[in-house]
Amino acid sequence: MTDFKEYLGSCQERIDGYLNQHLNSDQPRLDRLFSAIRYSVTNGGKRIRPMLAYASCEALQGDIAQADPVAAAVEMIHAYSLIHDDLPAMDNDDLRRGQPTCHRAFDEATAILAGDALHAMAFDWLAAAEQFDPAIRLRMVQLLAAAAGPAGMVGGQAIDLGAVGQSLDIETLENMHRQKTGALIRASVQLGALASGHASQAHLKALGTYAECIGLAFQVQDDILDIESETSVLGKQQGADLARDKPTYPALLGLEGARQLAASLRDQAVDALQPLGPDSARLQQLANYIVQRDF
Amino acid sequence: MTDFKEYLGSCQERIDGYLNQHLNSDQPRLDRLFSAIRYSVTNGGKRIRPMLAYASCEALQGDIAQADPVAAAVEMIHAYSLIHDDLPAMDNDDLRRGQPTCHRAFDEATAILAGDALHAMAFDWLAAAEQFDPAIRLRMVQLLAAAAGPAGMVGGQAIDLGAVGQSLDIETLENMHRQKTGALIRASVQLGALASGHASQAHLKALGTYAECIGLAFQVQDDILDIESETSVLGKQQGADLARDKPTYPALLGLEGARQLAASLRDQAVDALQPLGPDSARLQQLANYIVQRDF
Repeated sequence: MTDFKEYLGSCQERIDGYLNQHLNSDQPRLDRLFSAIRYSVTNGGKRIRPMLAYASCEALQGDIAQADPVAAAVEMIHAYSLIHDDLPAMDNDDLRRGQPTCHRAFDEATAILAGDALHAMAFDWLAAAEQFDPAIRLRMVQLLAAAAGPAGMVGGQAIDLGAVGQSLDIETLENMHRQKTGALIRASVQLGALASGHASQAHLKALGTYAECIGLAFQVQDDILDIESETSVLGKQQGADLARDKPTYPALLGLEGARQLAASLRDQAVDALQPLGPDSARLQQLANYIVQRDF
Repeated sequence: MTDFKEYLGSCQERIDGYLNQHLNSDQPRLDRLFSAIRYSVTNGGKRIRPMLAYASCEALQGDIAQADPVAAAVEMIHAYSLIHDDLPAMDNDDLRRGQPTCHRAFDEATAILAGDALHAMAFDWLAAAEQFDPAIRLRMVQLLAAAAGPAGMVGGQAIDLGAVGQSLDIETLENMHRQKTGALIRASVQLGALASGHASQAHLKALGTYAECIGLAFQVQDDILDIESETSVLGKQQGADLARDKPTYPALLGLEGARQLAASLRDQAVDALQPLGPDSARLQQLANYIVQRDF
């Protein structure tokens, strides 16, 4: 088995190639829109969600190529959400991954439309993925739409915006993150599993628990990094969340408490993988990576 | 057969009831988001797209109740596009149907999220419409996603924004409108036909031609009304498109030329319905209504 960093790199290369190949239009009048789309989608993201889809597919002995459309779909939903979240009316961020945000590099109208286009294309590509049975594809669309909508990502973002300046208790904070980032992480795992063609209910349940845990762990680590990292490493202003008086795990639990929570969630995630056996090694490594990453 | 205005009213009542019943959440923290969603979706729109879905379903002897989820889905995509188009960075409109636009009545962040939520929910509801076979539902999702995305509505809006201050020729203007408004009108007709359970390829082709024609006719009439109507009737600033130096049909063809084009498109639309026989009467009436309406 290759080194985890190599595996992560190979997943990044794979999804970047797939996205670059497909994210274009033959309409010259859409050049600016697609420049903004490609700029936002291929600016060096970590590709955690595509990797989760690939690794879940492989954990169930699926062929990694099967998972390309679902890896692309979850990353496109993620990319659209970042574009919209960065807008002046939302988080008003100038930098994303060390580069100007989409509305800074282009303009606000183009950024809004680039997000909307990615949102629609994610469903378009998924629905058109003919290697899957219609019933499977439909299930994928349902899972992704639920994860993206008000019961998932959009709802979490709405709650987050409404919570600026409020002190949330840990349960409310957890629910907010479960929707804002957890739902799409869960969908990434579920869609990857469905792409394998061998996903039983028991598999989906085990992977669901795994996804819940790493989803929260990811957020806790994000909050920790927001305090610890320098702007140059993180690619956005350090302490940006604190500066906006957003509720964070370190604010609620202290830095050491937040670190312990992240480690405990990682352990629960790894435990949940036991029924899947050794083929889930990549998912285990990913759980470790999520709480150990420093960017 | 009841009067057309009565029929239109019954369709409006039907879709308003369906949307009001379903557009809510049990999460108190999403109250503001759903207030903005309901405000935008149920503020007295003409409901042309739901009516097209219902009338197409009936034209193929389908039960009107079958078409509820598709009527809702196309109206939700339409409503999301209006919310985003009205934003300050886009058309910067203060009024929509005589009422403050979503970002004026609420705030910009909520308006962006309300649009995003409607976008995701449209696919969620469609994918969950269990009265249809998975293969039919999947086809519906594909048609709607393609109509909403860069090859359709979002692409048309991008071209429109890029064309402000430019003089477009009639072909480019037509292509722009075919994407911006035509694609979703076509999808409304196609999804309604699929909802009937009796849509043959020949039906879909005839209805496709019909939809192309009324889609353009609708836009031509919109441009005419923008010049003719007073602000109080239209619910937005009169001459707003001209004032922003947007290309319009009357600007290219003169007012009389635009009127003739609208009438000719109406005639082509009605001709296209011939293979469907008398059950397509509502669609014929709708074609007339589109070029005769004064609001």
